[in-house]
Amino acid sequence: MIISIVGIGLLGGSFALSLREKYPNIKFVGVDTSVVNQKIALAKGIVDEIVSLDEALQISELNVLATPVDAINKLLPYMLDRIPDDRTIMDLGSTKELICRLADLHPKRSQFVAVHPMAGTENSGPGAAFKELLPNKNVIICDKEKSSPDSLVLVETFLRDAGMKIHYMTPVEHDLHLAYVSHLSHISSFALGLTVLDKEQDEKAIFDMASTGFSSTVRLAKSSPQMWAPIFDQNKINVSKALGDYIELLKKFKDAIDNKDLETSLNFMNRANDIGRILAGIEKK
Amino acid sequence: MIISIVGIGLLGGSFALSLREKYPNIKFVGVDTSVVNQKIALAKGIVDEIVSLDEALQISELNVLATPVDAINKLLPYMLDRIPDDRTIMDLGSTKELICRLADLHPKRSQFVAVHPMAGTENSGPGAAFKELLPNKNVIICDKEKSSPDSLVLVETFLRDAGMKIHYMTPVEHDLHLAYVSHLSHISSFALGLTVLDKEQDEKAIFDMASTGFSSTVRLAKSSPQMWAPIFDQNKINVSKALGDYIELLKKFKDAIDNKDLETSLNFMNRANDIGRILAGIEKK
Repeated sequence: MIISIVGIGLLGGSFALSLREKYPNIKFVGVDTSVVNQKIALAKGIVDEIVSLDEALQISELNVLATPVDAINKLLPYMLDRIPDDRTIMDLGSTKELICRLADLHPKRSQFVAVHPMAGTENSGPGAAFKELLPNKNVIICDKEKSSPDSLVLVETFLRDAGMKIHYMTPVEHDLHLAYVSHLSHISSFALGLTVLDKEQDEKAIFDMASTGFSSTVRLAKSSPQMWAPIFDQNKINVSKALGDYIELLKKFKDAIDNKDLETSLNFMNRANDIGRILAGIEKK
Repeated sequence: MIISIVGIGLLGGSFALSLREKYPNIKFVGVDTSVVNQKIALAKGIVDEIVSLDEALQISELNVLATPVDAINKLLPYMLDRIPDDRTIMDLGSTKELICRLADLHPKRSQFVAVHPMAGTENSGPGAAFKELLPNKNVIICDKEKSSPDSLVLVETFLRDAGMKIHYMTPVEHDLHLAYVSHLSHISSFALGLTVLDKEQDEKAIFDMASTGFSSTVRLAKSSPQMWAPIFDQNKINVSKALGDYIELLKKFKDAIDNKDLETSLNFMNRANDIGRILAGIEKK
């Protein structure tokens, strides 16, 4: 069997790496517009060969579409147009509504499985891929009833063998929740990094005074703009709402501080503390 | 020699633990209003004995004032009033301007050293203390010229032997920088946790969809409200300004998303990426 990774970055690369030991007889081929990424992916043993997209479509049982979401929107119709019968495409995009809506318009919709692994780091590219990224993480499949039973079995088998726990939901639910539990935290982190950089022209002050708390809060600000700009755009309505909610809360917090209203400050923080109970669950996973 | 820890929590407890091996002949005594904290501190070997504050002042060469900052403001004048000559008080508070201003009013100012270690976790209390917290971290001493040479030598010796790197600045500089590189990231994290909790009444969605990126960004939301409310209050003007800057940036980001202005979004994120270079420096420390 051949699996193609289209866009050999953190997620696509880690997916291949997490399957290679369990599936010694699968050949992984890679498609990437970046020559340096091709070289890194070969050198790291993520894929055995680099091929063209058209060739990948002809030879692969499963095509893993792991590019940024704007490229997924362009590539998915192109790939569905050309894919032979009984073969499968899965994507790994962070937004699902627009992608699924595009897929729904296509006569070969049933050969597509919409997937999003709840895993990532602030790093990107095949050099950032590692086989421990996906195991023990959750993965969402959207609109599973629109995929053919065979395509679904193939994808679910590989996701489970990559060590992931599968959940199902609609693309609308997915994008709404993701705006709050993922997209918003990236924006808060980008903005925090930028606020500090704008203020602290003297980098030494940041070096000397930032603690590990700052590092962990601002870590996501290192994430790839090219990957995230299209995600925020495709999930614009939900992200804008989440960001609006966040700004409102921050304003209330600021008012409480300005007015020396310690009771409201304490109440805010006490309620926020409850996230600890939930984090304990996430970290145990 | 006897050292007293007044307020045996994460910082005070970790300070004692980081010195005990190197100073086998120092007796550590603890002062704490919480009986359970007294018991935990004794059981963990942070202190050898619990004493009253007045007793601590009579017997200790160095008194480490490690309570929340509102309590520091009340205790510092009381302690300076009663401290014998040639003995020393150091505080470990996260704000310095108000505390130093109070100290400046006191005739025994020179027996006080204003200290702030750039270290912490989201956990609090003596149970959270650990001897690896302070080594290799930075520590700030404010207004060192106002402390007597002997008090300064005593404090610097222990800070260095706890493995810390000492920096010097004025209380005004300290509080301004801290608003950006520490206090703001706590507020952004508290507000993020609360925004998600307010929206996601269904906790399962958070469990299933949050990734490690969310956990790290929201980790500080577990921090102690009783500790942080007085910090934000004491550093009100700087924190309010930092929070205002942050809200402005978030609004611009939201406008860019609403207007599908990808160029501005990309520009924001590319600039924020520069924090990566600085984080690399912090994590290497």
